Amino acid sequence: MKFERSETGFILSHKDQIVLQHSHSSPILFVGTGNATYDMYRGNFDIKDYVNERIALRCFTIKGDGQAVRIEFHYEGELQITLCAEETPEGRLKIGFHDAKESLNRVWIRLDASKDEKIYGCGEQLTYFNLRGHNFPLWTSEPGVGRNKASYITWQADVKDRAGGDYYNTNYPQPTFVSSDRYFVHLQTTAYADFDFRHSDFHELQCWAIPDYLLFDCEQSFPALVHNIYGLFGTQPEMPDWVHDGVILGIQGGTETTLEKLHKAKAAGIKVAGAWCQDWQGIKITSFGKRLQWDWQWNPDLYPELDSKIHALKREGIRFLGYINPYVLEDFPLYQEAASKGYLATRQDGSKYVVDFGEFYCGVVDFTNPAACEWYKGVIKTNMIDFGLDGWMADFGEYLPTDCTLANGKSAEIEHNDWPRRWAKINHEAIEEAGKTDDILFFMRAGYTGIQRYCHTLWAGDQCVNWNIDDGMPSVINGALSSGLLGNGIHHSDIGGYTTLHGMKRDRELFMRWAEMAAFTPMMRTHEGNRPADNHQFDTDTETLCHLARMTRIFTHLKPYIKAAVKENALTGMPVQRPLFMHYEGDALSYEIMYEYLFGRDLLVAPVYEQGARQRKLYLPPDQWIHIWSGEHYQGGWVEVEAPIGKPAVFYRASSADTVLFAKIQDAAEDLL
Amino acid sequence: MKFERSETGFILSHKDQIVLQHSHSSPILFVGTGNATYDMYRGNFDIKDYVNERIALRCFTIKGDGQAVRIEFHYEGELQITLCAEETPEGRLKIGFHDAKESLNRVWIRLDASKDEKIYGCGEQLTYFNLRGHNFPLWTSEPGVGRNKASYITWQADVKDRAGGDYYNTNYPQPTFVSSDRYFVHLQTTAYADFDFRHSDFHELQCWAIPDYLLFDCEQSFPALVHNIYGLFGTQPEMPDWVHDGVILGIQGGTETTLEKLHKAKAAGIKVAGAWCQDWQGIKITSFGKRLQWDWQWNPDLYPELDSKIHALKREGIRFLGYINPYVLEDFPLYQEAASKGYLATRQDGSKYVVDFGEFYCGVVDFTNPAACEWYKGVIKTNMIDFGLDGWMADFGEYLPTDCTLANGKSAEIEHNDWPRRWAKINHEAIEEAGKTDDILFFMRAGYTGIQRYCHTLWAGDQCVNWNIDDGMPSVINGALSSGLLGNGIHHSDIGGYTTLHGMKRDRELFMRWAEMAAFTPMMRTHEGNRPADNHQFDTDTETLCHLARMTRIFTHLKPYIKAAVKENALTGMPVQRPLFMHYEGDALSYEIMYEYLFGRDLLVAPVYEQGARQRKLYLPPDQWIHIWSGEHYQGGWVEVEAPIGKPAVFYRASSADTVLFAKIQDAAEDLL
Repeated sequence: MKFERSETGFILSHKDQIVLQHSHSSPILFVGTGNATYDMYRGNFDIKDYVNERIALRCFTIKGDGQAVRIEFHYEGELQITLCAEETPEGRLKIGFHDAKESLNRVWIRLDASKDEKIYGCGEQLTYFNLRGHNFPLWTSEPGVGRNKASYITWQADVKDRAGGDYYNTNYPQPTFVSSDRYFVHLQTTAYADFDFRHSDFHELQCWAIPDYLLFDCEQSFPALVHNIYGLFGTQPEMPDWVHDGVILGIQGGTETTLEKLHKAKAAGIKVAGAWCQDWQGIKITSFGKRLQWDWQWNPDLYPELDSKIHALKREGIRFLGYINPYVLEDFPLYQEAASKGYLATRQDGSKYVVDFGEFYCGVVDFTNPAACEWYKGVIKTNMIDFGLDGWMADFGEYLPTDCTLANGKSAEIEHNDWPRRWAKINHEAIEEAGKTDDILFFMRAGYTGIQRYCHTLWAGDQCVNWNIDDGMPSVINGALSSGLLGNGIHHSDIGGYTTLHGMKRDRELFMRWAEMAAFTPMMRTHEGNRPADNHQFDTDTETLCHLARMTRIFTHLKPYIKAAVKENALTGMPVQRPLFMHYEGDALSYEIMYEYLFGRDLLVAPVYEQGARQRKLYLPPDQWIHIWSGEHYQGGWVEVEAPIGKPAVFYRASSADTVLFAKIQDAAEDLL
Repeated sequence: MKFERSETGFILSHKDQIVLQHSHSSPILFVGTGNATYDMYRGNFDIKDYVNERIALRCFTIKGDGQAVRIEFHYEGELQITLCAEETPEGRLKIGFHDAKESLNRVWIRLDASKDEKIYGCGEQLTYFNLRGHNFPLWTSEPGVGRNKASYITWQADVKDRAGGDYYNTNYPQPTFVSSDRYFVHLQTTAYADFDFRHSDFHELQCWAIPDYLLFDCEQSFPALVHNIYGLFGTQPEMPDWVHDGVILGIQGGTETTLEKLHKAKAAGIKVAGAWCQDWQGIKITSFGKRLQWDWQWNPDLYPELDSKIHALKREGIRFLGYINPYVLEDFPLYQEAASKGYLATRQDGSKYVVDFGEFYCGVVDFTNPAACEWYKGVIKTNMIDFGLDGWMADFGEYLPTDCTLANGKSAEIEHNDWPRRWAKINHEAIEEAGKTDDILFFMRAGYTGIQRYCHTLWAGDQCVNWNIDDGMPSVINGALSSGLLGNGIHHSDIGGYTTLHGMKRDRELFMRWAEMAAFTPMMRTHEGNRPADNHQFDTDTETLCHLARMTRIFTHLKPYIKAAVKENALTGMPVQRPLFMHYEGDALSYEIMYEYLFGRDLLVAPVYEQGARQRKLYLPPDQWIHIWSGEHYQGGWVEVEAPIGKPAVFYRASSADTVLFAKIQDAAEDLL
């Protein structure tokens, strides 16, 4: 850390990178007051802010004490806030926000930026990979349907359900970003934030509370940078071994249907690792489609004999996975128990508070109450783990309303973003306490700072069953790469997408292309979508069954390679799916490429994400690459390859230690023929 | 004016009405800096502001000098701005903004508000009549197509043409409003402004420059209040007498077509005052529809013999009207003349600047250059008045781009809003200099402060050919009433609407209902719309011809009554179309009613504005009312009457001096049968 006075201000830098550059004419800190309104409708938020004051803090006094530099900012002769800059024991620059005047509830801080810099991260971002040129409100919510105001799907979703969303809406925001200049910035806060990357010479971070601190560090390489970040947010264990043994099939409809579909899949040569039955606890039908009975226990009416079949399946090598989320269905047994014990969030006067989830209402289990957490962990342990589930979707986490009252006395406005982390922690600890961390898998869509150490597998949320850039298959790639840079090394998505509304129906081609992509991610899982009957499914026809069989065989063939990448993530925080610049830092174009990724160190994957396309134009960073289907060698640069359905554009490095394995991908795919 | 100190601030009131109530905890003045970007596409603006600072000015010093009170606001020990409050010779309260620190370019001032107060005005507002609960950006522009983000038409217009607009977009904004508490406020500025009426205890006026001053006055009655406002913005002459003699038919297609259509109209019994041929100077076809040749002179190819026919028609009692706007078509004669004389706005380096009007480009005649104004007046006098035109649409005025350079050296950002006034002035003076103010009529859609004294007839702009609340027939009523309160007493609209896009087509019912409404406005004029072939026209069938004949007969029957109302406007500023509260101030409901109006003092008009409706539910303020069709008497309150096509819901006051005239409306309508 280096602090220097300038004519009217100061320059704070760290490892030769300027962080803050303050002067009278370009102040770096603004404080003020605002009144925000949060209008939530089924997880979609209409958030408005009325900024009452925004004051540039120009005057400052320095109080250094050797280790730390205290910068006291004054305005009208009164101390407004103190920035305290120091190096942490790990060698990061930490800038604390202290002594803020009590009335202040808005902070804007400007960080030095370079004109050509690119920015990544901010959680799981779906529309943009490089975030420069846009601002990103950071608030966990439904990500929206369509996510682009110029799309007709979005317009319909907005008008009918207030649910269209926009480019920045995500289940998993995080006030942390990575720069192409090889530094990262993290703002420690759970308040609403908005990171603005539209300016040429500064990045402006806005926070609707006084943040705790800002962390900055830079490294000589991107692998070192992601390792640094990984150390910050927590390490991830390896995935259970069985996940690598095939696809997890999303099936609904009861024991008989599940067994039939599994039989059909295996007969077609599909490698099956698990059956994921989200309706294991029963269903309800709403206008949206098939919804679940949110009372987290086995439903023997829909799943007769599951208590014994679950073990029989496991003996056959097929794990059974279920579903849970942090809400309990009004008037059902778990709700009643929680309500009677005082484990639910309430209105300010202590009276009942339920949340509208779309034609049904639920109580919010209050995770700020340790006793409620223990109780919910007990539900997971007893009803799910002891019952025999080997995994589940831990859905939601984004719906904490800002006007409910919580046990810890904190504002729900401040707790809202932290809810996904609390929810992940409960799942993580329930599994850990059951001693099953190595064998049970849960996956989440919601996230925020700190999710990394508790949730080891993200899934990309509820994409549309289409090819849309903002909310269809391609958006998943941005989600994997952005979240991967922040310590979330394991990512996957619903094969075929989920949201089936406003005339959208999943067709065969989309399902097949999505399966091709999923074979080159750490985990394969299908989903029927919210309106299964409208969608092409894995077993709709023989061609699809056969296609999925081929893709699962590629996936299992790559098991040693994928396991090694997953292990590398566990050890170093290197994500399994990586942007090209991770290993080609000197190549300018590698910072711009979207819809391609490195899968581990040695595979380059360019999914076909356009309907009807049978070729794929893609960029190869400078290296020796071999196309897995033709065996042709490439030197890097823009190329176009044939990519008929079943043969996604994938390349391996000629210098890889795994060339023998890669050369046999084609054989593995054809194994069953 | 009364100025009192309070514990930490002051209270400024005028005629017992509190205007400013300043205290340390509730400051009334905020200043700051912002960077705005204006992105114009064919008259639609995408305007963004980045507010760098917004400082509450809490500290002040008073410097009274008997007449005026000078309030100096300080911040960080430095004078920021001085408010100078004084009473004008007319008895209004004037608050000047003086001595502003040079760097400031944003001002927010809060005016005292009462919780139940209603607000009207802000120019010609089309979606809302009572503006409370919303904010209103004030910037003259295209009003948008659909004007509601929840409408499919708007979505299409946005996606295809960036043209959808929103509730506040209008050709005629004005930073002036009227309160139900019987006061008005006017902010003297031409900069971008935004008036925010969303707060319960204050109205916040935002201005992107230091305004000149704020005017405030209150009166004991609404008639006194509109008279006060009328005195401020300028008086209007009476309309030419011939306007009252029938409909002005919007016709296109050349001399022969015009004569044929006029013949057909007269044969059907339609009272015709004029033929309005906007294509008198030629046409061009674009993807939008029929557009005009913007080179303002008679086109003898399309209108052969018009130079003689125009006089023949006049002898028959039919005036011929044309069209002009403030732009000249690139490379056509007027453009070349203007360019060679230096009469066009330029780029900063003096080079050519043309504006995209949709598949063609035009030069902007620089009205800040007195020589250019004289030249353009000359064009109007020579090419239009001397040629024999007795009126025209003076279209546009909203497209001054913010990045062009003007002769007076002022920023186009500041001149933009003033352009409609400058444009009106040119038309007004050309007519005045020709000595024809009593005989020639021009009408405009664009407006801003000061338009009142130059343009004597507004038209409501380009409504959609539908029933839409935000942009169809009903929106015209709000436009008439809001602009009428600010000194624009004469208003009318295109019978049948104009914008025919995105699948919209005008049907017979809409045309008929619109004609019914127009019979109870100061002027009747039809328009074929931008795609005439898609629209039902006045002569499409016999029923429509007959309907229009009836409506024009009602209109001409009412000539003495309408003329008296027009004269009253000229003398006192009392608008011809009036909100119910104008004469029923004690009746709370009269402040809430939309889509009804008083036409003069004694007629109450409730147009049927819903497709398929054959009854009209409406509110009658407390009085004795007689339904013009049934003769039934009503006491006031909510009533529902039969309103089949041809019999709009209209009532007259039993105590009127004109009951004999009104009682014969029905006979007049049936006169031709």
